[in-house]
Amino acid sequence: MSGREFFAARTVAEALAGFRPAHRTPVENVPLAAALHRVPAAEVPARSALPGFVRSTVDGFAVRAADTYGASDGLPTYLDLLGAVRMGAAPAVVVRPGGCVAMPTGGVLPEGADAVVMVEYTAETMPGTIEVTRPVAPGGGVVRADEDVAVGAALVPAGRPLRATDLGLLAAAGVTTVAVHARPRVAIVSTGDEVVPPDTAELAAGQVRDATASALAGLVADAGGEPIIAGIVSDEPGTLRKRLAEILPDADLVVVSAGSSVGARDETADAVAAVGEIWCHGLAIKPGKPTLLAECDGTPLIGLPGNPLSALVVFGQVGVPLLWRVSGCDAPPPEPGTRARLSRDLASAAGRLDVVQVRVRDGCAEPLFGPSALLSVLTRADGYLIIPEPATGLDAGTEVEITLYR
Amino acid sequence: MSGREFFAARTVAEALAGFRPAHRTPVENVPLAAALHRVPAAEVPARSALPGFVRSTVDGFAVRAADTYGASDGLPTYLDLLGAVRMGAAPAVVVRPGGCVAMPTGGVLPEGADAVVMVEYTAETMPGTIEVTRPVAPGGGVVRADEDVAVGAALVPAGRPLRATDLGLLAAAGVTTVAVHARPRVAIVSTGDEVVPPDTAELAAGQVRDATASALAGLVADAGGEPIIAGIVSDEPGTLRKRLAEILPDADLVVVSAGSSVGARDETADAVAAVGEIWCHGLAIKPGKPTLLAECDGTPLIGLPGNPLSALVVFGQVGVPLLWRVSGCDAPPPEPGTRARLSRDLASAAGRLDVVQVRVRDGCAEPLFGPSALLSVLTRADGYLIIPEPATGLDAGTEVEITLYR
Repeated sequence: MSGREFFAARTVAEALAGFRPAHRTPVENVPLAAALHRVPAAEVPARSALPGFVRSTVDGFAVRAADTYGASDGLPTYLDLLGAVRMGAAPAVVVRPGGCVAMPTGGVLPEGADAVVMVEYTAETMPGTIEVTRPVAPGGGVVRADEDVAVGAALVPAGRPLRATDLGLLAAAGVTTVAVHARPRVAIVSTGDEVVPPDTAELAAGQVRDATASALAGLVADAGGEPIIAGIVSDEPGTLRKRLAEILPDADLVVVSAGSSVGARDETADAVAAVGEIWCHGLAIKPGKPTLLAECDGTPLIGLPGNPLSALVVFGQVGVPLLWRVSGCDAPPPEPGTRARLSRDLASAAGRLDVVQVRVRDGCAEPLFGPSALLSVLTRADGYLIIPEPATGLDAGTEVEITLYR
Repeated sequence: MSGREFFAARTVAEALAGFRPAHRTPVENVPLAAALHRVPAAEVPARSALPGFVRSTVDGFAVRAADTYGASDGLPTYLDLLGAVRMGAAPAVVVRPGGCVAMPTGGVLPEGADAVVMVEYTAETMPGTIEVTRPVAPGGGVVRADEDVAVGAALVPAGRPLRATDLGLLAAAGVTTVAVHARPRVAIVSTGDEVVPPDTAELAAGQVRDATASALAGLVADAGGEPIIAGIVSDEPGTLRKRLAEILPDADLVVVSAGSSVGARDETADAVAAVGEIWCHGLAIKPGKPTLLAECDGTPLIGLPGNPLSALVVFGQVGVPLLWRVSGCDAPPPEPGTRARLSRDLASAAGRLDVVQVRVRDGCAEPLFGPSALLSVLTRADGYLIIPEPATGLDAGTEVEITLYR
């Protein structure tokens, strides 16, 4: 049974808010070296404070701050040099009143001291005596034992992909494996009697190589997923349904890159209706209207338009957010962007999201048009702008936000 | 011999323009599925045109455009239905004057036809006769055989990392392996008697786990490099020099995460001077002044400050551009960013580049301060802003560009 007649078109905003299959990828432990951009399943708390000891932030001398009060160039304070702290070792001396200890940056503040005076404000006027020409307040020149991280504080939050600097903080805290959501396995199945694999050397009349699957695989990888190229199925009735039933058990998200003929579109809807529940058939987006969203026992399925450009635009707007959600991510990383002035008027229908490919030169965004059958429009573009659903167009000269491709 | 005394500090702008070691990674062939974000060594030309045939962009009927001139709802044109084109197959019929052929989107335009009239403007009024109510111009409803890509045109340029959509266009053109620069191998060596591996369960007094190497590995991976954690060496004279000599032959870029004590800094300069030529020692950047740049037989080496925050800031500003250059990339991908209003005045010294960590909330950028010994400043930040070298500060309320972490 075709779901086509029974499901109205939806807006992209409705789809993002309302289409929420429950499936999430399982949690696995990965070593820190493999954790970049992975999504922690839970907040990771610090088991101990960092740096864990009162640590000097300067080269200088550990002192009792009170001993330096009033010190100046005209009236220096003189302190007895009691010893030196070695890097990575416990101090062997205690700072008594009137005394000081030589400190390297990063050293442990010795007992008795409460500050480090910078070497720039000192001089060893005679062996064993340090002249101090500027006062230091208690806590000066050091960080507290828990100033970087307190015990129990969150080193990283749940649900936000780990950044390079997060890996540093986890390493500092001795966390060398992290519980993260598994990378979503995204099965990409292509349909269409005309579609042949990219490694087909010579094309017969009317054949086209499968461009969409390779590009989708790239978008999936960019969003932290693991693309699984599930091959090309013909438009013959029943073929897609059979393939979907095979791939669903091992997929966290299924993407059908539909054939572009009427027959292929009908066949996709029939096949999807047989394995899941269609949530919408038709999205108010240009390009990309013939998009289908369905849920198969909690696993999201997205049926993309036949034209590569339309398919990739829709996947970026709807598929990528689904992918983040499946991977347990509620704070996707920011995308590159820039602001530019629109070179010409753009019309749009109210209630529809328009995604317009643009070249950006010298602060000017020039829309690129062409049939959505042309993939090269997408590769010539630097990025795209969105005309939101309520708008009926944009005037030339408007400053617009461009999302840039990377 | 220490290079310290002989090399003046440089500005970041001078370093980026003037420090240009010649080494580039070799070229290797990789399959398309592994080519995302890899840097093509040469432009990849199309061996044949795309789509390679005159292709319908709509569902409808292939016609001779002249036969539809003047067609309207009031005065339709009637054409003989001569057959149908199948997807992925050569047309079996020729369109003669007064005839038409049913066309699926994506089908091959049959001989004799020069346009496709959309199905919306047609009706099969009686079996074998198609009524056309709107004219179509020659070339309407189709793309030319070379409209997506002409023979010999560049599918992708040299020197720009491949995007997901580039993979699609390459697949469409039958290019399944690409000659790309090898990923730069970035050897990261940490120094400091106080530094211990991240998997050290309990720290002795004064010890710190190596945070910088893990974070640098993440930054390297983000810039397309392959991090090689080359271990921790002590501050003992000669140790670093020996380690550098070992790792240089297999590295495309060497990063020394220096110990933060005076002794460690001296030792780094001595060791680097023994294996290469120091280009500068000292950069006009805050944080990150004690940075060292050197060239070892064409291979760049960067000596980073001891504090993790300073080290990571400098690596982002200077190391990442070096990394892109070594990998043959002259058009690095754009970084995420946003604009925000500064919450407070920021001072800066003219001639120095300041990198200020910020939190961004509701369009407002709040600078985060703290000793550069604190890694958590970096993990709490959403991004950073740059106070450029000529500026002496920024006023509260200024609109600033923030580079966002991802």
